[in-house]
Amino acid sequence: MSQRRVKAEPSESKAEAEAVARENGPLAIIAGGGTLPATLADAAAARGRAVHILGIRGEADTKISRFPHTWLKWGEVGKLFATLEGLGCRDLVIIGSVSRPDLANVRFDFGAIRNLPFLLSLGVGGDDQLLSSVVRFLEGKGYRVYGAGEVAPELLAAEGTLGDKAPTPDDRADIETGFRVVSALGRLDIGQSAVVVKGRVLAVEAAEGTDAMIARCAELRKGARRRGLAGVLVKAPKPGQEERVDLPTIGPDTVEMAAQAGLAGIAVAAGRVLIADRAATLAAANTHGLFLFGQKLARDQNA
Amino acid sequence: MSQRRVKAEPSESKAEAEAVARENGPLAIIAGGGTLPATLADAAAARGRAVHILGIRGEADTKISRFPHTWLKWGEVGKLFATLEGLGCRDLVIIGSVSRPDLANVRFDFGAIRNLPFLLSLGVGGDDQLLSSVVRFLEGKGYRVYGAGEVAPELLAAEGTLGDKAPTPDDRADIETGFRVVSALGRLDIGQSAVVVKGRVLAVEAAEGTDAMIARCAELRKGARRRGLAGVLVKAPKPGQEERVDLPTIGPDTVEMAAQAGLAGIAVAAGRVLIADRAATLAAANTHGLFLFGQKLARDQNA
Repeated sequence: MSQRRVKAEPSESKAEAEAVARENGPLAIIAGGGTLPATLADAAAARGRAVHILGIRGEADTKISRFPHTWLKWGEVGKLFATLEGLGCRDLVIIGSVSRPDLANVRFDFGAIRNLPFLLSLGVGGDDQLLSSVVRFLEGKGYRVYGAGEVAPELLAAEGTLGDKAPTPDDRADIETGFRVVSALGRLDIGQSAVVVKGRVLAVEAAEGTDAMIARCAELRKGARRRGLAGVLVKAPKPGQEERVDLPTIGPDTVEMAAQAGLAGIAVAAGRVLIADRAATLAAANTHGLFLFGQKLARDQNA
Repeated sequence: MSQRRVKAEPSESKAEAEAVARENGPLAIIAGGGTLPATLADAAAARGRAVHILGIRGEADTKISRFPHTWLKWGEVGKLFATLEGLGCRDLVIIGSVSRPDLANVRFDFGAIRNLPFLLSLGVGGDDQLLSSVVRFLEGKGYRVYGAGEVAPELLAAEGTLGDKAPTPDDRADIETGFRVVSALGRLDIGQSAVVVKGRVLAVEAAEGTDAMIARCAELRKGARRRGLAGVLVKAPKPGQEERVDLPTIGPDTVEMAAQAGLAGIAVAAGRVLIADRAATLAAANTHGLFLFGQKLARDQNA
């Protein structure tokens, strides 16, 4: 592809002007599930940036269709690049939840086959390696990959008490333990979250995801809720994680599930965890009497 | 209690002789669930050692009644010590699975109330701290607490390939990763086991226990089995764990569940993990084509 050019001179030909226009093309949002892709698109549009959403079929919400969009299936790597090229997109954001596709049922297009050595390299290792590989692959093709927080910082958790309730000193002790656990897990590329109740690590997230982990805690703590809320869900990115993609996320459902599990609150790494549907998330926390807390972490502390 | 005495002199009084006989009393086996308490009692009896099983009601198998036994409920701390004293037991083994009792429903006896400060100290921290506290408490009262492996080393996993099948080089790589994960977890007093499939940590055990963790893997890997067995369940004690009590255990059910999850095998820390019902465990592994492997670990490596 052409060299990057900042602006077109009046003397340039129509073809050259078009080339530059292509470089300033819409922000491409590769969208998985949840409300974040649309929230991000709104945030970008509010800043005057045109967007085009590439929705992953079976993952992205059909509501993305209120924006300019294209649907892609897993395996349509050729279609992805053709779409980006056709729109003149150079800037990408990858956002939203995805399930690991069952590769046996994915139909790869010709563009995928051309990139087969890369795709085969994805089969080994943890999520973090996989996502870093995807980002390096896209950058190698000349795309710029941005984090959602770079486009719209207001989507990230702020520092300190975020809702009505503040963590107690006991909660703070559980929060500290939780970040220590998540940090140790993250160094092994395992998971991003853990639940700590009164100093005891109740659950640790690996491949099952945060929601399944909290549901397990609700099961383990049956009957414990009547003795009062206690414990905390801690969530933070892994050390060295590709934070432009797959930033840890919480939302109203996370709060509902934490309340079901009898937890006193949720603590996240400030500035490094996305809050999907901020208003609904804070409202849920306030309704259930849970704290929501953004903990400032040194970057080498992880988490 | 009296000082320890090795043997009675002929000149001693009947009361003194009885005191010495009490010191050489039966081995007391405080029994939780599963087949291990009875297996251990058989192993001790085969060595000519009299045993008395103290079965925890609701935990221990009723089959322990073929041995001299006493039933205890959670909270009957006074009855425990009265029984040990009455039998002249100074040597204890604590073995078998227990569920964490719901303290709100435990009825404490007078002996428990006398030891209340100790019992209250158990409420905080991980399983490991709790069990170490129990052992120190018993030792403080003059009892000797033995590990099941000290009484019957044949109950521990040996080194190397234990069944018909040996791990492949790919399996060995997953085994190495698994022990690294379990070691890191153990240092945080979290859990004793993890599942690694092709370099990826699929699940990590915390409070839910090994069985629930493997069941989760079976759920996560639905449909993966037809593509062939892969991955390993790794189990090892935590670094600094009180290995006389609560040694990690596998048995036939563990193998059945690992097979359900499509795993290629199970690796345990050689000499530091108990195998309940060894014959049935090996038979299950051979039937399902799973490897069973005892990995020699440096003690400071954990795990």
